[in-house]
Amino acid sequence: MKIAFLGLGTMGKPMAANLIKAGYRLRLWNRSAEAATSLAELGGQVALTPLEAVKGADIVISMLADDHATRAVMIDGGGLEGMSRGAIHLNMATIAVAFADELTQIHRDKGLRYIAGPVLGRVNVAEAGQLNILAAGDTATLQEVQPLLDILGQKTWYFGDKPAQANVVKLAVNFMIASAIGSMGEAVALAQGYGAEKADFIDLITSTVFAAPVYKGYGGAIAAETFEPAGFKLSLGLKDVSLGLEAGAQANVPMPIASVLRDQHLDSLAHHEGQLDWAALARVSARRAGQNDQ
Amino acid sequence: MKIAFLGLGTMGKPMAANLIKAGYRLRLWNRSAEAATSLAELGGQVALTPLEAVKGADIVISMLADDHATRAVMIDGGGLEGMSRGAIHLNMATIAVAFADELTQIHRDKGLRYIAGPVLGRVNVAEAGQLNILAAGDTATLQEVQPLLDILGQKTWYFGDKPAQANVVKLAVNFMIASAIGSMGEAVALAQGYGAEKADFIDLITSTVFAAPVYKGYGGAIAAETFEPAGFKLSLGLKDVSLGLEAGAQANVPMPIASVLRDQHLDSLAHHEGQLDWAALARVSARRAGQNDQ
Amino acid sequence: MKIAFLGLGTMGKPMAANLIKAGYRLRLWNRSAEAATSLAELGGQVALTPLEAVKGADIVISMLADDHATRAVMIDGGGLEGMSRGAIHLNMATIAVAFADELTQIHRDKGLRYIAGPVLGRVNVAEAGQLNILAAGDTATLQEVQPLLDILGQKTWYFGDKPAQANVVKLAVNFMIASAIGSMGEAVALAQGYGAEKADFIDLITSTVFAAPVYKGYGGAIAAETFEPAGFKLSLGLKDVSLGLEAGAQANVPMPIASVLRDQHLDSLAHHEGQLDWAALARVSARRAGQNDQ
Amino acid sequence: MKIAFLGLGTMGKPMAANLIKAGYRLRLWNRSAEAATSLAELGGQVALTPLEAVKGADIVISMLADDHATRAVMIDGGGLEGMSRGAIHLNMATIAVAFADELTQIHRDKGLRYIAGPVLGRVNVAEAGQLNILAAGDTATLQEVQPLLDILGQKTWYFGDKPAQANVVKLAVNFMIASAIGSMGEAVALAQGYGAEKADFIDLITSTVFAAPVYKGYGGAIAAETFEPAGFKLSLGLKDVSLGLEAGAQANVPMPIASVLRDQHLDSLAHHEGQLDWAALARVSARRAGQNDQ
Repeated sequence: MKIAFLGLGTMGKPMAANLIKAGYRLRLWNRSAEAATSLAELGGQVALTPLEAVKGADIVISMLADDHATRAVMIDGGGLEGMSRGAIHLNMATIAVAFADELTQIHRDKGLRYIAGPVLGRVNVAEAGQLNILAAGDTATLQEVQPLLDILGQKTWYFGDKPAQANVVKLAVNFMIASAIGSMGEAVALAQGYGAEKADFIDLITSTVFAAPVYKGYGGAIAAETFEPAGFKLSLGLKDVSLGLEAGAQANVPMPIASVLRDQHLDSLAHHEGQLDWAALARVSARRAGQNDQ
Repeated sequence: MKIAFLGLGTMGKPMAANLIKAGYRLRLWNRSAEAATSLAELGGQVALTPLEAVKGADIVISMLADDHATRAVMIDGGGLEGMSRGAIHLNMATIAVAFADELTQIHRDKGLRYIAGPVLGRVNVAEAGQLNILAAGDTATLQEVQPLLDILGQKTWYFGDKPAQANVVKLAVNFMIASAIGSMGEAVALAQGYGAEKADFIDLITSTVFAAPVYKGYGGAIAAETFEPAGFKLSLGLKDVSLGLEAGAQANVPMPIASVLRDQHLDSLAHHEGQLDWAALARVSARRAGQNDQ
Repeated sequence: MKIAFLGLGTMGKPMAANLIKAGYRLRLWNRSAEAATSLAELGGQVALTPLEAVKGADIVISMLADDHATRAVMIDGGGLEGMSRGAIHLNMATIAVAFADELTQIHRDKGLRYIAGPVLGRVNVAEAGQLNILAAGDTATLQEVQPLLDILGQKTWYFGDKPAQANVVKLAVNFMIASAIGSMGEAVALAQGYGAEKADFIDLITSTVFAAPVYKGYGGAIAAETFEPAGFKLSLGLKDVSLGLEAGAQANVPMPIASVLRDQHLDSLAHHEGQLDWAALARVSARRAGQNDQ
Repeated sequence: MKIAFLGLGTMGKPMAANLIKAGYRLRLWNRSAEAATSLAELGGQVALTPLEAVKGADIVISMLADDHATRAVMIDGGGLEGMSRGAIHLNMATIAVAFADELTQIHRDKGLRYIAGPVLGRVNVAEAGQLNILAAGDTATLQEVQPLLDILGQKTWYFGDKPAQANVVKLAVNFMIASAIGSMGEAVALAQGYGAEKADFIDLITSTVFAAPVYKGYGGAIAAETFEPAGFKLSLGLKDVSLGLEAGAQANVPMPIASVLRDQHLDSLAHHEGQLDWAALARVSARRAGQNDQ
């Protein structure tokens, strides 16, 4: 089985590495060549263009940065054009649902098979092959890529036969993360408004009702006011919340909390906080309450 | 040491029982007498009026339903009037911060000592003596009641020397719970807008990034659409969110997510859902998206 | 016909003056005596206490600052106690609907008649006897006070037989004014985000689709950034928006725009802008967009 | 001077007619031919393609439905390609600011001159040549088209040398109209929550502080519950509010009221009200408060 892997960024690289280590032969392409080269040492085969990578592949996995990069490589850059009729494209990036629908149609028109497989988990989880994979698309096709997904992740969650369904779930999850951060920010501002220590408050909630990874991670950063280096940039959070709102709009789903969060992110960006960690969203609540000078 | 316990509702009763079982002699009062009578069998002493209960007590614990009940019993009903100078009042109810400040002043004026000790945990947690207790007030005074708190809860969290600080933290936590329910509702409506199954979505998040009690509990109810019997009524959720917003207003803390949640609760009440479990808040998002007929 | 007039503030004084000039004999009371004294020159009779003022009056008009002042004077201060059975109390202040309901009940219990008559218009309009009066209560009773209302205002608008109905309309109007200011602020921030001049924008809208007094007044202040002296203080705007939200909550009416506005006002207060004119609310939008240093 | 006019819809047709009546020779193009044919009787010259229309024109006026139509005709359909170097394109449609920036760049690259001139006013205003024209772009170029604008409108408002500045102002105005409708809806729901008549309330505000065209028009429809036929469809309102939010996002301007309004529109669409008049937005507030069965 010939596999192509396009997009060797923070997430893509360890994912490709895991597949190679598992014995698969991968043809690799990345916009900047170094990432591919370093994987060549593990046994990967470097392609100089997307076209060269996908040529003759049975399965093409793409993990490109966003809609724009995916479009540039797979549509405008010839990625899909170069694929063999009947081959499978497994797109693991977080993309817009409208774009997912467009891709679904394009694949159908070209006689290609398409599976959406966006993931939950950051780089260390990817390295450990412990991602949670949100999958959607034709079930028979999914079965063919399942052995690969089993290497990349700890579990594959299936959300339906339309690829966009996996993408919308990914956006819904990221909206919920934004919401967790945003409501911590608001709660902390409230507590601070009465002189309660925010670290004590975060300690309380993450030890009790909110003893979940996302609260511990972002809550810890909020308590310590440590927003650099960014684990996940606030500006990327805005992108995902905005994609969630767009998806909602397309299906006539009002999302008032997401709307508030989007405005909070814009407030952050207007105050030059877009490069900080997503947890810095909490600064907006503090700033509005006059609790800091930022 | 003489202890009075006022308010033997769902929470107060098991709390008082635990103190009695631990060997403390309690004088008990409740608006309706049955609750007190049943505890008499354990060894408690039933008082017919708040005044009779608090008379000569070293420590008065109150766990009354809300601001109104607390005012009726402790202020208008003579509870504080009957206490001995220097005695301690430990108020474990969830009350407004403005009322906490008012109570603080009244105690000071009367030469009484006042500790706020609202709790996290439902009735089963209270029965097990595993509450998390949010405490605020004078530290020396707190030390005197600490042995009692150690029986009632697994841990006491201290938030400052002003009693209102414990109350605001309690309101901040409850706001966060409302926020968790509200954002699940919004995320589920988004997923359903694309035909993804809400049970699958809830399963995903509560198994991964949101593997916290509050998401499992309310999320399970949302997935199963089981809103009766109510573990915690939506109308009580509105009360707490409103108290949180009032507390925010008093300290000039804008709380836009709480504002959205308040409006969602009102939407629920306008559709006769106030008696349902708090999880039913998710129906608002579905209804606005035209996803149900309710 | 004996008339008492309680509350001779900015609005009450010119209103009382107009009644005196029209030939009515008024007994006047105000918390600080000067206001009453100056009206004595016109022919008014100064009372030293609310009780003295209302004694034997057929109609008692009150124009007190807010709920608190109204309660202090009319309930706790003996105003209602001193009125003769069957006398009419015409309350022209902007008060909460819950308080209006409470007052309605108290009057009924005491055998007094009660009309709510809050007004639209500022001091110059009051001076000119050109107020718009929002009235509610028993129609026969209203007819008895109509001659007085005809002196005070250009038109009486009737909203129902429950006094609270006039109060809720007043709050709804003030909410709409806040909304007009808030949306101008948001629109101006948007235009400024692209370098368009805010004065040009305000000029455009107030010359075309928004050629209404409220837009011209507040819009002019926004364009010129002239927020002092305050025609109507932002902090008073917050009071009215909050009363509107409370009224909404009591009737299960979600008011998401009012909720946003309330948060904007709190943001203003947190930045020490509560004493500025209501138009300064626009600064919140600019500040959040990073368009000023305030 | 040769003039081409592309887009003869509801607004474009009377605008083109006025130019013809004023003595200008126009080459006309419209997607469906009838509109152009009817203007031929006035003296206009019908073109069968955009290319034929713009060929040799000194000034090309486009009034196409939206971004999509403008792109289809002017970019993909060869409209700009066919224009002579140095010719002026006056785009009077309401388009996105991002698209305005893209068009600005394209014109520059092709050696064309570009003026944005979106308008305020509906069809009857267009017929009367009384539009308000929001203009932006190079001032010398604007002067060349001013004689045409003087026929089409009563006044030209200038907002800067970047075409997008006129577009953002148009979006800001339309956001404000949405805000006026939305806040009327909320205020009416509040008043109705207490049994006050909505017609009385609308009558009050449009006779006093909100005596402006936009309140009278939409308010009248709300009071009478007359939402068909649509003067301006709610679904088009959503489009403009969404474009306003996009513009805000691009400039980091949080727009929380616009966010609320967007959610209200989605709620309307989810309840099949998109084809109704924009005033029907008020039904959302009533529905959420349980005041109707819709």
